[in-house]
Amino acid sequence: MGIHQYFVELAEKLTPDLYESIVLPRSVIEVVADEEAFQGWRTRQTGSIAALQTQSFGKDDSFILDFGDHQVGYISLSIKSVGSPQDAPLGLKLIFGEMPCEVAEPFDSYEGWLSKSWLQEETIFVDVLPTVLRLPRRYCFRYLKVVIIDTSRKYTVSFTDIHCTAVTSADVRDLKPLPANVQEDLQVMDAISIKTLQDCMQTVFEDGPKRDRRLWIGDLRLQALANYQTFHHHDLVKRCLYLFGGMTLADGAVGACVFEKPNPVVDDTRLYDYSLFFVATLFDYYEASEDHEALVDLWPIALEQIHIGLARLDEYGVVRDDETWWCFTDWHPELNKQASAHAILLYCLKRGLGLAEVLERKLEATFISDQIDRVTRAAHHHLWDDELSFFVSGANKQVSWASQVWMALAGVLNEEKNGQLMDRLFDSSPEIGMTTPYMYHHLIEALFESGRPEKALEQMRAYWGEMVKDGADCFWEIYNPNDKKLSPYGSNLINSYCHAWSCTPTYFIRKYLL
Amino acid sequence: MGIHQYFVELAEKLTPDLYESIVLPRSVIEVVADEEAFQGWRTRQTGSIAALQTQSFGKDDSFILDFGDHQVGYISLSIKSVGSPQDAPLGLKLIFGEMPCEVAEPFDSYEGWLSKSWLQEETIFVDVLPTVLRLPRRYCFRYLKVVIIDTSRKYTVSFTDIHCTAVTSADVRDLKPLPANVQEDLQVMDAISIKTLQDCMQTVFEDGPKRDRRLWIGDLRLQALANYQTFHHHDLVKRCLYLFGGMTLADGAVGACVFEKPNPVVDDTRLYDYSLFFVATLFDYYEASEDHEALVDLWPIALEQIHIGLARLDEYGVVRDDETWWCFTDWHPELNKQASAHAILLYCLKRGLGLAEVLERKLEATFISDQIDRVTRAAHHHLWDDELSFFVSGANKQVSWASQVWMALAGVLNEEKNGQLMDRLFDSSPEIGMTTPYMYHHLIEALFESGRPEKALEQMRAYWGEMVKDGADCFWEIYNPNDKKLSPYGSNLINSYCHAWSCTPTYFIRKYLL
Repeated sequence: MGIHQYFVELAEKLTPDLYESIVLPRSVIEVVADEEAFQGWRTRQTGSIAALQTQSFGKDDSFILDFGDHQVGYISLSIKSVGSPQDAPLGLKLIFGEMPCEVAEPFDSYEGWLSKSWLQEETIFVDVLPTVLRLPRRYCFRYLKVVIIDTSRKYTVSFTDIHCTAVTSADVRDLKPLPANVQEDLQVMDAISIKTLQDCMQTVFEDGPKRDRRLWIGDLRLQALANYQTFHHHDLVKRCLYLFGGMTLADGAVGACVFEKPNPVVDDTRLYDYSLFFVATLFDYYEASEDHEALVDLWPIALEQIHIGLARLDEYGVVRDDETWWCFTDWHPELNKQASAHAILLYCLKRGLGLAEVLERKLEATFISDQIDRVTRAAHHHLWDDELSFFVSGANKQVSWASQVWMALAGVLNEEKNGQLMDRLFDSSPEIGMTTPYMYHHLIEALFESGRPEKALEQMRAYWGEMVKDGADCFWEIYNPNDKKLSPYGSNLINSYCHAWSCTPTYFIRKYLL
Repeated sequence: MGIHQYFVELAEKLTPDLYESIVLPRSVIEVVADEEAFQGWRTRQTGSIAALQTQSFGKDDSFILDFGDHQVGYISLSIKSVGSPQDAPLGLKLIFGEMPCEVAEPFDSYEGWLSKSWLQEETIFVDVLPTVLRLPRRYCFRYLKVVIIDTSRKYTVSFTDIHCTAVTSADVRDLKPLPANVQEDLQVMDAISIKTLQDCMQTVFEDGPKRDRRLWIGDLRLQALANYQTFHHHDLVKRCLYLFGGMTLADGAVGACVFEKPNPVVDDTRLYDYSLFFVATLFDYYEASEDHEALVDLWPIALEQIHIGLARLDEYGVVRDDETWWCFTDWHPELNKQASAHAILLYCLKRGLGLAEVLERKLEATFISDQIDRVTRAAHHHLWDDELSFFVSGANKQVSWASQVWMALAGVLNEEKNGQLMDRLFDSSPEIGMTTPYMYHHLIEALFESGRPEKALEQMRAYWGEMVKDGADCFWEIYNPNDKKLSPYGSNLINSYCHAWSCTPTYFIRKYLL
């Protein structure tokens, strides 16, 4: 990888301290099978924490705590023995769940293709009681199931205190409440968005604090947008930009994600759109922060992404589509990415031009401007289908939601025609739909930017609003209102239920609806 | 409980430092089912540690390390990731086995009545690699099975260093080798005895470093005898005596065992014979150490045990047998304990008399001497069956090995008659036999003390010698040459395979055979 040591060091200096808060469990619950409930499970309160503290537990006993809301943090359990002196180790299993399914369905049943090590459980043996068990790993949960593997015939155990030390780098004191006249459901959606963002804000913007727990540039871009409307933690965005800029792949491309520990390192995953989003994220950052120094530092990296993106254009000025590349756009096995990738290139070229102009880099601005014309023309000539009145993608001229949304965001057409394109999209509803909140974000953004705010709001309510009705404490990585057990990973146990790319309703509400 | 704070504080001041030594695994093995082998399992070397270090492991891979000998200590694993950056936690399961059965038979199959928390396994998730994983718990093992629960599709793991930091309070430099002319099999038996003792010598004389891990007075008495012939760690015996003496049960009886952590505390288990053994253990300690100060301190406790023991005598001077008491003697469901308890009382009265004489406590010596006469007479009149020429026990006049052995040790008859009693015992071989090495120890001691050294040696060879042939690294808690899967706990997985009460062959060899 290419390392710009100075950038990495600066990023490390910007590592934020975390705010800590103590969160106590609210109640003891059970999880009940219920076909009407989301994923088939609902919770029911069965007891109080005060009562729990007076109980004692032996072999095979268990209980489930509800912490009342989604938490990211560290768990501490104060445990004492009851009865004769502790004559054998205490065996405990702890199972953490963001959602009821995780404390209801056995992890042994997991057969998905993502690492099962993501499933949050611990098996612990305690040789000496009483103890205060402070687990060193960070967990992400609302529910904690405690199973007593064994005590002995001569003693049981009692839990005198269980609490979570929740962590985030978001300063909730910075948060401005929405005006009181904002509709109730939007107030709720805004609050859940912000909690999602807050729980993903750690020493970087994580994609999901339960699973992956790392910095992806696709998620970062949306988190940064939500952050500018809420926590204004510019230095955290800056740290992330310097991490991406400081560690590029061998040819200079920005990697799709970076790891922080044990030392910062860029992953070997490369996505066409994600490398380009470095330009857009830097543009948004400069708009929010006016941090000229960072712009000067990082402009060469951004410009390099533009060159790398352009290198994929064929002789007609169209992004080449073949089997040798990866572009994310959305989790959809049949989606052809050519048109969306082409539009993302154009979207980022326009933001690159903006940055070149701020920097008064005239030659570079002229170059980018020429490329914008070239790419726009190519879109009109080679990706637009007059007969269908839609943008098409790939050799089979696929019409998808994603292609239209990104072409609208890229501004290939003017605002009026974009609006009409969006209307046609909803009217004809192509079969190749959208699967992630990440793609829905871009749909909503496209609707707002194409003069369709009512439709945008309707769609927000139809998507994030449904998650709220389904009991979301934070917004989820994966959601399909028509297939609520959907997981691209083969099991809903491993889905992330607090996921960065779902956090943007607050951005829309605060940017477009106030 | 009755606390003599000064005794407990003195005991705590005597807590020894532990000697540490680094032990590396010797080879990679597999465990193979083999009906001819002990418990049906034998090991077979499959690879070297050097080769292991060059391999990398992913989901569901596993390997078993052989550390070459029994170890008590702490484990450290240096682990690095191989391939792409670590994009998911590493999930590991570690299973520790004193014996091949523990790494061959799944712990899930355990259905015994002792706490399954004693089974030595850990499930660990590692968020950041490389790491040096130093597990905080102490394990007792020769074999370590490492199972990779999961890595991810993008990385595997390699183990660059795995080692054990073995601990003991025994100073092996104090050890005198046996003369070279001692027979080979006795040399081996002596070495295994000493290793057993060494691995049980920690901050107290533990009964078993794998299971129970605490100070029982029955085990202590035998460990102390072996210790006086080998490591001469008098202060460790002293610490244990002060712990027992410092924390007695409500009526002043010495408890059967004490726990060290978090603070010293006596268990609520009470055994008639074990309370009395405080007197014998103090007697042996004084003989070995001539520590007059400790004798003065602890004599009142010893005397109290004598009074408590005598309080169980009925109007005929015989230990009362009913449903309200517990006497250990041996693990045997049908053994009646009356005669052995009576003999143990007499055995301890005689040692109490010895101590009273050293202390020049004339009144007490006279009192004890009178009781010795009374108890001896009662044994002759009420527990000896002239027709059978055996001592009998309980309402049903049970004839057992244990009763004869203890009556011989108590010296109810003279040495010549004891010898004849032992001969008759072997000739008629009563049905109620012996089940533990603890009881076999007393048989051997009785044979030596009754002028039957050849028979003693033959029996040592038949019992401990068979364990050696069955592959013992240390001597076991439970062994029946005729039923090698025997466990009083319902599973051989939970048997302790390094157990204090088995450590005495070195005592016999060094005391009687040199």
